Amino acid sequence: MPAKPMTYWNYIKVEELLALQSGLEGEDTMRNDEVMFVVVHQIDELWFKLALRELVLIRDLFAQRHVAEQSLSSAVRGLRRTVLLFGQVASHFALMETLTTRDYLAFRDKLYPASGFQSAQLREIEIIMGLQSADRIPLGHETYLRALQNPDGSPSPASRRVQARLEDLPSLRVALDEWLYRTPIDGSLPDDIGDEEHVRGVAEGFIEAHAREIDRNRQRAMSEALTPEDRERLDARYLREAESTRAFLLAEDLPEDTSADERSRRARIRAALLFIESYRELPLLAWPREVIDSIVALEQAFVIFRQRHARMVERVIGRRTGTGGSAGVEYLDQTALKYRVFRDVWAVRTLLLRQSALPELQNPSYYGFVAADDDTNA
Amino acid sequence: MPAKPMTYWNYIKVEELLALQSGLEGEDTMRNDEVMFVVVHQIDELWFKLALRELVLIRDLFAQRHVAEQSLSSAVRGLRRTVLLFGQVASHFALMETLTTRDYLAFRDKLYPASGFQSAQLREIEIIMGLQSADRIPLGHETYLRALQNPDGSPSPASRRVQARLEDLPSLRVALDEWLYRTPIDGSLPDDIGDEEHVRGVAEGFIEAHAREIDRNRQRAMSEALTPEDRERLDARYLREAESTRAFLLAEDLPEDTSADERSRRARIRAALLFIESYRELPLLAWPREVIDSIVALEQAFVIFRQRHARMVERVIGRRTGTGGSAGVEYLDQTALKYRVFRDVWAVRTLLLRQSALPELQNPSYYGFVAADDDTNA
Amino acid sequence: MPAKPMTYWNYIKVEELLALQSGLEGEDTMRNDEVMFVVVHQIDELWFKLALRELVLIRDLFAQRHVAEQSLSSAVRGLRRTVLLFGQVASHFALMETLTTRDYLAFRDKLYPASGFQSAQLREIEIIMGLQSADRIPLGHETYLRALQNPDGSPSPASRRVQARLEDLPSLRVALDEWLYRTPIDGSLPDDIGDEEHVRGVAEGFIEAHAREIDRNRQRAMSEALTPEDRERLDARYLREAESTRAFLLAEDLPEDTSADERSRRARIRAALLFIESYRELPLLAWPREVIDSIVALEQAFVIFRQRHARMVERVIGRRTGTGGSAGVEYLDQTALKYRVFRDVWAVRTLLLRQSALPELQNPSYYGFVAADDDTNA
Amino acid sequence: MPAKPMTYWNYIKVEELLALQSGLEGEDTMRNDEVMFVVVHQIDELWFKLALRELVLIRDLFAQRHVAEQSLSSAVRGLRRTVLLFGQVASHFALMETLTTRDYLAFRDKLYPASGFQSAQLREIEIIMGLQSADRIPLGHETYLRALQNPDGSPSPASRRVQARLEDLPSLRVALDEWLYRTPIDGSLPDDIGDEEHVRGVAEGFIEAHAREIDRNRQRAMSEALTPEDRERLDARYLREAESTRAFLLAEDLPEDTSADERSRRARIRAALLFIESYRELPLLAWPREVIDSIVALEQAFVIFRQRHARMVERVIGRRTGTGGSAGVEYLDQTALKYRVFRDVWAVRTLLLRQSALPELQNPSYYGFVAADDDTNA
Repeated sequence: MPAKPMTYWNYIKVEELLALQSGLEGEDTMRNDEVMFVVVHQIDELWFKLALRELVLIRDLFAQRHVAEQSLSSAVRGLRRTVLLFGQVASHFALMETLTTRDYLAFRDKLYPASGFQSAQLREIEIIMGLQSADRIPLGHETYLRALQNPDGSPSPASRRVQARLEDLPSLRVALDEWLYRTPIDGSLPDDIGDEEHVRGVAEGFIEAHAREIDRNRQRAMSEALTPEDRERLDARYLREAESTRAFLLAEDLPEDTSADERSRRARIRAALLFIESYRELPLLAWPREVIDSIVALEQAFVIFRQRHARMVERVIGRRTGTGGSAGVEYLDQTALKYRVFRDVWAVRTLLLRQSALPELQNPSYYGFVAADDDTNA
Repeated sequence: MPAKPMTYWNYIKVEELLALQSGLEGEDTMRNDEVMFVVVHQIDELWFKLALRELVLIRDLFAQRHVAEQSLSSAVRGLRRTVLLFGQVASHFALMETLTTRDYLAFRDKLYPASGFQSAQLREIEIIMGLQSADRIPLGHETYLRALQNPDGSPSPASRRVQARLEDLPSLRVALDEWLYRTPIDGSLPDDIGDEEHVRGVAEGFIEAHAREIDRNRQRAMSEALTPEDRERLDARYLREAESTRAFLLAEDLPEDTSADERSRRARIRAALLFIESYRELPLLAWPREVIDSIVALEQAFVIFRQRHARMVERVIGRRTGTGGSAGVEYLDQTALKYRVFRDVWAVRTLLLRQSALPELQNPSYYGFVAADDDTNA
Repeated sequence: MPAKPMTYWNYIKVEELLALQSGLEGEDTMRNDEVMFVVVHQIDELWFKLALRELVLIRDLFAQRHVAEQSLSSAVRGLRRTVLLFGQVASHFALMETLTTRDYLAFRDKLYPASGFQSAQLREIEIIMGLQSADRIPLGHETYLRALQNPDGSPSPASRRVQARLEDLPSLRVALDEWLYRTPIDGSLPDDIGDEEHVRGVAEGFIEAHAREIDRNRQRAMSEALTPEDRERLDARYLREAESTRAFLLAEDLPEDTSADERSRRARIRAALLFIESYRELPLLAWPREVIDSIVALEQAFVIFRQRHARMVERVIGRRTGTGGSAGVEYLDQTALKYRVFRDVWAVRTLLLRQSALPELQNPSYYGFVAADDDTNA
Repeated sequence: MPAKPMTYWNYIKVEELLALQSGLEGEDTMRNDEVMFVVVHQIDELWFKLALRELVLIRDLFAQRHVAEQSLSSAVRGLRRTVLLFGQVASHFALMETLTTRDYLAFRDKLYPASGFQSAQLREIEIIMGLQSADRIPLGHETYLRALQNPDGSPSPASRRVQARLEDLPSLRVALDEWLYRTPIDGSLPDDIGDEEHVRGVAEGFIEAHAREIDRNRQRAMSEALTPEDRERLDARYLREAESTRAFLLAEDLPEDTSADERSRRARIRAALLFIESYRELPLLAWPREVIDSIVALEQAFVIFRQRHARMVERVIGRRTGTGGSAGVEYLDQTALKYRVFRDVWAVRTLLLRQSALPELQNPSYYGFVAADDDTNA
């Protein structure tokens, strides 16, 4: 027996969907402003759901013991889609700003003490990306987990979602680090004999090249400095820059009690990031490089969303205390500045060199195509 | 007894909402591509709901026998919000384009014969705006109403919605015409003695000014025309332009069997549009002019949405036949070009004159503020 | 003799324009990345020029002793255009981000010590809006004016532009304050007898209404607070809010040495802002209210531009020191958070009340249309 | 001797740039509206210049006899940048719409007979992409080349630019075809013995798979068709679809007088497009597939720009005749619908199959990485 023919309204569940905007008191008594307020938050949640699904899939991909090269382009596609999703959410703020302060106040009281901070999925996105609880800025007097529970402290659908996500390991950041750790660096793999020395050699080569660039800039700046104080200041700055580059690439900036193994692992991850970004023309590195670039775009899109959120709140309600009790605008702006998940990825950008200043590779052919030596040109 | 404290998840109905993306077979077996496909359509429906609510409210406002001047700024706010809503919907297409042809085909078959043409709310928006059934381009072999019914021809939730909307009169276009009809034109109201002659005088004054402008342009073009054929062609074109302006403003372009009353009514509406746009600096006309401008922006935003829709379909599925049996891209592009609701509003743009060429008014003080003659300046 | 017929290339000066992208060394040796870098900055300057022209025109309008009501809609149009202009500039950052770090570094050295901080027009925009020199965050070791001079300290085209703008008074903020000061508040003008008491009465009425709202919120929050500490904290917060509202509206927050006149003037300006936003339905207030809303949109658009700028710099060059010697990303983020020109406009948003909590007016008819009492409805 | 230190104003040529907005009569007498009109066109030209440089570079790349795989990611980057550039130009229309009809008319007369159709660079972009002169829609009574000359018919800077571009061969379309022609199809290259049969076999395999899909859809649709007429209509449609797929892939749709060689060449190009899109997971095809996708995005962005252009013109001036004598809005809308450069790329989208319906390959390993068989995972 054939299934009933499909209809748009069954597939999209239109009627069920359009019955969910009744807020507290029923849609008939709600003004358009409030219905819009409800709908925009619902749409945010729908975008968040998609973003979460993409992030989980990408995390699963990198969490494998072996990541097939062929799958990287699909990871990149997923990351780019997530960037677009964050962009969609950010674009709602202009719409929300059609709500004037006075008109928002007409129904704001009813919401107390509910708050956008109670969006479980937004917290889940932070968690799956890899934001650590210790890095969170406290939200008023209570923890973010408490804010997600029912007012009486019992578990809520929101707190249950977040709790489950906290246990859904690894985060994308950790999975990506694992994958980065296994990058062949100038032809050497972690299990290869002598890999640690080889990688150290690559890092030292880069550190030297970097120092040469810095010295070049220093000399130029010096020739134009007008006073001895200027020269001293410049000298000190460039010295600091060279030292911090070395410390970062050799992982000497980690806490003192870091084990030698962990330090060496971290150094390899950072060397891999630098290697991928610096030699991106090698065929085997082209997609890893797109992965890194998409990760930067992902975190950037999230920060842009946070800052745009702060601007909307500032415009619609000013600097008053949020319904959830937070400091509102300032809290949002601070999370935008302080929350960074992929710190090493960002840090590496500060070290990159122009192409002509890069050390030469020993094993570029390792990164080629089977068909590359033929005179083919697909 | 105090009500239970509000939570975000109860107010937004997060859990109910996130349970609606199971499509046909349950979410667990769906790939991200399909979930995104479902979610984007759900979000479209949510934006459409808001747009409909705004359009109904604005229609209600203009459908009153007396429209308070104070309420015009809120009508403008509603229209501008609707423009933003259409913009949101249009912005989803870039996201939808992250779905590649091949990946869309992986689940497309299941949808047959469902189709986006079965969105009741999109049809409702067209209806409440004032699109007339006779102006619709046929969708394959069946009427748009048939496409909204169940496959067996019985009424569906979609067809019931559209049926109800067809009976929800007047449309915004008709309500707006009523309001425009009552515009004081150079101080004269429809019920004033001699109004028809007065309005005709204003129209004739404009027609003359318009003819002078055309003649000015004609002479300039003539002086630069190189051949007698060019001159003839120019002469003919400018003559045609002058004649069609006259015919339009005196409503002589209506079908022959139009009653004199209806012709005079239409002429007054067109004169009102011209008057409002031409003398927009008069305080009493400032908001009506924003209304007209927002109506233009509304219809434009809808056309932009239609054309962007066609571009997405062309990109994702090419020129193949739609799941609903339509000619796909071409149908969408044709609706964008042919569907225009506020035809007189658009037509007036083609006639407007630069400010210095406008006839002078007899009664500008009619359109002022109580406090305007004082040297106040709020 | 007739003028030569106009051509696009003469009017737009296409050839002259397309000859200006040779950078330092001539276009032939420049890579596309660098040409794009030059062009984007040129386009920024062109948008800035338009923004400056709009801001000057709006400033001139409000700097008049009498601002005709009819001209407010054109001021609003100018402000909205400027908002779009800032949006255009912000939209370039996504394009600039197609420049990878490594490729930017290929030509970055040549630019030293030039820097985007040397854009005179951006400084002029800040100055004409009303940013005060004392509020600027120092840019490294030198003043912003020094950065605009030639490297040897002599005046440059940039420093001359900024110097001239510093003398081009008043700023938009000051001109707007003058206009706000003259707002009729519940029918009373500054020169009217008893105006100061009248305005004070309106302010006190609002302060009382505000206190009632706060108390309402306080009681609600108290009933849900769980611990005595929570209750104490809430009590303190709401008390603080009531006090700061009073201080702000009576201008008691100004420095101690402020003259009574200046304090009364400031109180009147703040009352006017509150009055316009609270009673925006009154016909005479409809456009002033759009002015205020557009000012908020203007400053917001500028902050959004600043934050997006910081994100682009962070993405392309990371946290390295700027070519001009600044701390780069952090400096940009700090200016976004700290620079606010229209502080009173923003502060008032934090005080607004929902419509039903507002005190009633004594003289609403003062704000009507001449034609309003007739049963007309243009 | 060291060079003079660089300044922003010298590098960007700020002063020269800001001196170019004087239009016809000098900036002092121009209103902001007209200065904006000039500046927006100047900025369009600057974006066009960048787009042209990118397109030329990409064309040069594909015009090589051997295109290194490593260079494809840079071609994709260039194409994506061009898409963003077209997006920037399209975003100006919202700004242009702040110009009201009446205010545009205040200076429009002066422009006659100049026109945006005289933008040489826009024509150059069409030419370098590969639009053929024969495909152009006539612009009124004169050729597009005549419109670019001086009014007296002598060569102008614009006509000289376009003439030079017409001689700058090949177009991107032609260069891309050359590159596509050389694609290894299931491991076979054009010069390989038996390549023609091999490619024909791949095409036939696809044609069969395609026919199976069509039959599947046909049967499904038949089971739900209600009347014999419906069934006949469906039968005919699906038959037509199968036949046109076969004709397209075997290049049987070319004009009768096409040589066998040319027919076989065209069939190979189309097979290559189909092959790349269908088996995009193969490492060697990942970047070619991004190239194809970016070409689609490029042409789409151009069409979106054209349609948005039509909407702006319709809004600002209505349906009146353009200053250059064209039919304005309708002409613009027609070019958007009719001008397509990469027709085969678009046509292939209509044929693609879902992954599980694709024939299996014989030589997938041909498309792998050197390092792929190791258990590495960069």
